Amino acid sequence: MKELQERIRQEGLILSDTVLKVDSFLNHQVDTKLALAIGQEFKRIFAGKTITKVLTIEASGIQFAMAAGIALDVPFVYAKKKKAVTLSESVYSAPVHSFTRQETYQVSISQKYLGPDDNVLIVDDFLATGAALVGLVDIVRESGATLAGVGCVIEKSFQEGRGLLEAKGVQVHSLARIASMSPGHVDFIEDEELARV
Amino acid sequence: MKELQERIRQEGLILSDTVLKVDSFLNHQVDTKLALAIGQEFKRIFAGKTITKVLTIEASGIQFAMAAGIALDVPFVYAKKKKAVTLSESVYSAPVHSFTRQETYQVSISQKYLGPDDNVLIVDDFLATGAALVGLVDIVRESGATLAGVGCVIEKSFQEGRGLLEAKGVQVHSLARIASMSPGHVDFIEDEELARV
Repeated sequence: MKELQERIRQEGLILSDTVLKVDSFLNHQVDTKLALAIGQEFKRIFAGKTITKVLTIEASGIQFAMAAGIALDVPFVYAKKKKAVTLSESVYSAPVHSFTRQETYQVSISQKYLGPDDNVLIVDDFLATGAALVGLVDIVRESGATLAGVGCVIEKSFQEGRGLLEAKGVQVHSLARIASMSPGHVDFIEDEELARV
Repeated sequence: MKELQERIRQEGLILSDTVLKVDSFLNHQVDTKLALAIGQEFKRIFAGKTITKVLTIEASGIQFAMAAGIALDVPFVYAKKKKAVTLSESVYSAPVHSFTRQETYQVSISQKYLGPDDNVLIVDDFLATGAALVGLVDIVRESGATLAGVGCVIEKSFQEGRGLLEAKGVQVHSLARIASMSPGHVDFIEDEELARV
C-alpha cells in the first residue's frame, strides 16, 4: 500500500534496527482517513473470502479491526489482555509474551462471540515476533471457526512472525513489509502490493 | 439516543445494581454500524464547536473515538495506560484508579499530539466513577488545549462521575443515561435526548 509506505517514510521514527515508531498516525494519534483506507485495502485483499467477523487484540489493533469491519460490513471482536472482573463467562484464552513490555499476559475472548459459523479475518497493527497473532490463531481454531487469514498493517519481515504463522498454514498479508531498517532508512518488500486472496 | 437505549434493553446484561455488561455490541464484540451512528450523534451534539481532535483512553474508548473522528473528519488520540518501552519522549500523564480492575495505573499522552492549538472532544464508552475522564480532563488542561466537552456512550447517572466533571466546569453529554438499574430492568433519563451544544 503505497500511501502507507510513504507515511512510514515521512513520519515513522526508526529508533534502532528493530524499533519503528508510527505513533503520529497509526497507534497513538490515529489518522482516521488513513485507517479507513487501510480497512478498504484489507477488503480488497480478502475479497475472495466471505468474512463474517474481524478479530483483533486490544489496544492498537482496534482502529484497524473497526476499519476492516466498516469496509466489510461485519462486526469485530477484540481480545482482552487480562481477564477483567466483569468478563465472567466462559472464554477462549491463550498466553502471549510481549517483548515490548517484557511480560506474559493472558488473551481471552468470550465463547459467545466466536464459533463454527464464523469465517474470521484477524487484523493487527504490527507483525513482528507474531506472539499475539499466534495466540489469536490458536483461539480461532479452538472455537471451531474458519480462519480466512491474517492482515497486518506493518510487518517487520526480518523477524520471525510471518514464518510462525505460515508454519501453521495461515495466509498472511501485510500492507507494508519492511525488509530492513535503520535510523533514517527503511527498505520495503514490494511483492505483496497486488496480492489478492 | 433511542437506538442505543433499545440495544441496552435488549442485549445489556445487568449483573447487579451497578454492573452492566454490553460486550455483545459495544466493548468486546462491536457492532460497527452502531459505533458509526454513535460517532454521528457526537457530531450532532457538538456541532456548535470546532473540534480539531478527539481524545480517548485505551482500550474500549478507541472504537468510539474513531467513530467520532470519522464523523468530525479529524484525527483521534488514545491515551496509553502504562508507559511503554517505546513511548520514550515527553508525555502528559495522570494517575487513574480503576475500580473494575482494582488497580491504579498511569495514563499518558505524548506532548507532541496535544497542545494550545487543539480544541478537544473527549469520548469514552462509560461514565461511572469518572476516574479515567477526570485524568483526561487534567491532561487536556495541562497541555494548554481547549476542552470542547466530554461525550460518553453510556452514563451510570447514579454514580459520581458526572458531578466530578461538572465541578471542573466540563460540559458532559451522554447518549444513554441510566438513572437506575437492576437485573432485568433499566431506567433511562430522557432529558439529554435533544441536547446540542
